[in-house]
Amino acid sequence: MPVMTPAMLEQFILDEFPQVNHLNCKIHSVDDENIEVSMIASDRHLRPGGTVSGPAMMELADATMYFLLLAQIGPVALAVTTNLSINFLRKPAPGRIIARGRILKLGKTLATGDISLYSEGSDDPVAHVVTTYSIPPKR
Amino acid sequence: MPVMTPAMLEQFILDEFPQVNHLNCKIHSVDDENIEVSMIASDRHLRPGGTVSGPAMMELADATMYFLLLAQIGPVALAVTTNLSINFLRKPAPGRIIARGRILKLGKTLATGDISLYSEGSDDPVAHVVTTYSIPPKR
Amino acid sequence: MPVMTPAMLEQFILDEFPQVNHLNCKIHSVDDENIEVSMIASDRHLRPGGTVSGPAMMELADATMYFLLLAQIGPVALAVTTNLSINFLRKPAPGRIIARGRILKLGKTLATGDISLYSEGSDDPVAHVVTTYSIPPKR
Amino acid sequence: MPVMTPAMLEQFILDEFPQVNHLNCKIHSVDDENIEVSMIASDRHLRPGGTVSGPAMMELADATMYFLLLAQIGPVALAVTTNLSINFLRKPAPGRIIARGRILKLGKTLATGDISLYSEGSDDPVAHVVTTYSIPPKR
Repeated sequence: MPVMTPAMLEQFILDEFPQVNHLNCKIHSVDDENIEVSMIASDRHLRPGGTVSGPAMMELADATMYFLLLAQIGPVALAVTTNLSINFLRKPAPGRIIARGRILKLGKTLATGDISLYSEGSDDPVAHVVTTYSIPPKR
Repeated sequence: MPVMTPAMLEQFILDEFPQVNHLNCKIHSVDDENIEVSMIASDRHLRPGGTVSGPAMMELADATMYFLLLAQIGPVALAVTTNLSINFLRKPAPGRIIARGRILKLGKTLATGDISLYSEGSDDPVAHVVTTYSIPPKR
Repeated sequence: MPVMTPAMLEQFILDEFPQVNHLNCKIHSVDDENIEVSMIASDRHLRPGGTVSGPAMMELADATMYFLLLAQIGPVALAVTTNLSINFLRKPAPGRIIARGRILKLGKTLATGDISLYSEGSDDPVAHVVTTYSIPPKR
Repeated sequence: MPVMTPAMLEQFILDEFPQVNHLNCKIHSVDDENIEVSMIASDRHLRPGGTVSGPAMMELADATMYFLLLAQIGPVALAVTTNLSINFLRKPAPGRIIARGRILKLGKTLATGDISLYSEGSDDPVAHVVTTYSIPPKR
């Protein structure tokens, strides 16, 4: 069972990680392996036509893996991204983006996962991300 | 429905793509979106201890995406890999490696998919690959 | 010789690509193969301690490749990123980030380059990016 | 200064890493940051037309980073690849492939580098690789 619930994660973000507030993330569910997060893009993330920018999708995927990792290991603010690789697959529709993350490997020092991003209501991913976080040693 | 069956794919490989024969690939199933392939590594792919080498896993993943793509578009020998990114997650067990591939986007000129590799009998992936093929224009 | 100078690129961005204005990019130089860009991060890109966030570095690298591509092919607003892979290597120092981009392949439909990011005054990269853009066909 | 010379590396490979003998690698030079290796592909690495296969290029790049890392830290057989990302840029010419590797970061537990691959005599890379090795802790 994860050690942090969606509500605990959202509170942690508010308190410790205010830089991602602008993503307007909502954490729908999280378990031992999977997470679902959604983002309502604000104006600064939009491209002409109202679609979400590539950098906003990268930031959402990065945050999604961070939340999924924190849910497993607790509020370790110092976990850092070491690698992130994104493929942009389709132009997103205007509106909410759903991120579904999955842990591929949770090791002692590295955690790897993949995240698929969807426009709400579609099953075809708009982007796919694989990312690895480095976990600081316990003191 | 895919345009090539596992048997047709295996015959095509024998006829046109003999370079991958050494992987001893068997195609278990393929549909519009997913494929399952297995490889019995030969000696040249083994590391001390009998586990499969990293390069053999890269080659298996690359071939798996190629087969999955051919199953959708027919025997286009000239599709070529443009990008392949692999994360090695766990040491494989000796023995057969199972590759499960999935199409993320099948476009007119590019096709992207991901492939998870498993030691037979385990649900924890030993490696995860994302790869993109370029599809030649129809003449 | 590139078809757009740094001044032309900066004007194009102001007119057509205002979303990246917030990066406060300055284009120092560009030629057939290389570009140098710097970013003065604004508050929203900073982490506690005054260092630049990962997503801001991804956005800078993405923009750098875009500028480098435009300099070669002219103001084609519709070129889009298909793949971006970043390795975070060192914690950046507070202050300006320098991006040095290089074209690896400029094809008819795809352009690939790599970008190294540095804290001003240091020769050790803080991050390294490889990215591919898709170039729309000429009408 | 590196702790292993090209001759020491070649001997180490013969003794401890015979799986890569089939690449027919020759190590031309190595210093604190850079390495140059060449491969004369054997028949099993060739595609119709005599060009080197994608998997052989991946294997060469992986081995090149391994040699570059060993040259810095000494003969640590257990360093393992955690991530490798390759872009295939041009069709190689028949004949020898040159790999030029560079360290981007040599940390205590992770080492990241990039490798450009060339057909002998050309300055346009046929492929570009970024890869990370995990370094086992000292006993």
